[in-house]
Amino acid sequence: MEVFEAIKGRRSIRKYLDKPVEREKIEQVIEAGLWAPSGQNNQPVRFIVVTDRGLIDEIDAEIYAIGKVFKRIRLFIALFGKEMRGEGGRRVFKSLHENGLYKAPVIIMAGAQRRSSATYMKDCSLATQNMMLAAHALGLGTCYIGWMRLLNHSFNRELLRRLSLPKGFEICDAAILGYPASSPQPPKRKTVEETVTWVQ
Amino acid sequence: MEVFEAIKGRRSIRKYLDKPVEREKIEQVIEAGLWAPSGQNNQPVRFIVVTDRGLIDEIDAEIYAIGKVFKRIRLFIALFGKEMRGEGGRRVFKSLHENGLYKAPVIIMAGAQRRSSATYMKDCSLATQNMMLAAHALGLGTCYIGWMRLLNHSFNRELLRRLSLPKGFEICDAAILGYPASSPQPPKRKTVEETVTWVQ
Repeated sequence: MEVFEAIKGRRSIRKYLDKPVEREKIEQVIEAGLWAPSGQNNQPVRFIVVTDRGLIDEIDAEIYAIGKVFKRIRLFIALFGKEMRGEGGRRVFKSLHENGLYKAPVIIMAGAQRRSSATYMKDCSLATQNMMLAAHALGLGTCYIGWMRLLNHSFNRELLRRLSLPKGFEICDAAILGYPASSPQPPKRKTVEETVTWVQ
Repeated sequence: MEVFEAIKGRRSIRKYLDKPVEREKIEQVIEAGLWAPSGQNNQPVRFIVVTDRGLIDEIDAEIYAIGKVFKRIRLFIALFGKEMRGEGGRRVFKSLHENGLYKAPVIIMAGAQRRSSATYMKDCSLATQNMMLAAHALGLGTCYIGWMRLLNHSFNRELLRRLSLPKGFEICDAAILGYPASSPQPPKRKTVEETVTWVQ
């Protein structure tokens, strides 16, 4: 698939076929992530791939549970994370809902050792966008899951043990993956005119 | 260009031809950025495109100047930003050098209003990866510039005024852009085996 076609054709998919994704395809998706650039070529990004149906459902429930707590203590956590302050913080929790992983058959988390580099958060995001494009080119659907970072605050030791997260590992980005069962229309995009300041 | 070819063929370019980039191509690059997903479809990302040679050089000098100060007070700023703690913080300043924008003819900054959403930092990064792939497909080179975020700490009012940064705007990501004057070999990538934990 042509690059611009992939970039414009990728949708956030929230309905999936009940069909497993071939391991080979998942590996192709992750390889695409590995080719993203990283600060000082540190390559700090690691991936957790979850395909166990029961575990995915548990993660889904755990994220929702933590989200509900965070919603209640939003003003408190705003002290530590600027993203939670102001309008942005108020708005995001309105979108919290159950079944936030949309019964997708695969989760791919991208993360890194906390403090392993000055840019690890960015490195993970760049890799994740590569993965979402690659998945689309392979006929797969994805949806970026910002809420996944709540797992970093989980106290569910059994769940975390099953994810084999290395000590000090931070989940930075995540996407769900699967064969799409819907082909949603793209939301209207802001235009170049609306979004660019030219300094010539 | 095919998606996987673009993903694997994109290099970080640090040598550019002294040749301006056509406005139409820059717009195509930015449009690719606009098609990246954003949390709750907020589309908070805005772009600053700088093509003025003198101004680019001033930005380059300003980033280096701020970087030198930050290097000196690293342990102090580590109190506020976890990325600056530990090994990552020590290592990143070793790579600080003059001419960090490599005399590229274009800078594209991606940013958003601070606190405009819970995910604006991520949204900017996803858009930036799209732009780097699109640029490569158009025969252009890019290099992600993590240091650009130091501009958020600039006190150079005249420089900031010329960039027309809206009040409360945060530069989140940036890439330089231009016709490449080199075609570097890709650094060896970590493999899927080395980077993935499968939870099946």
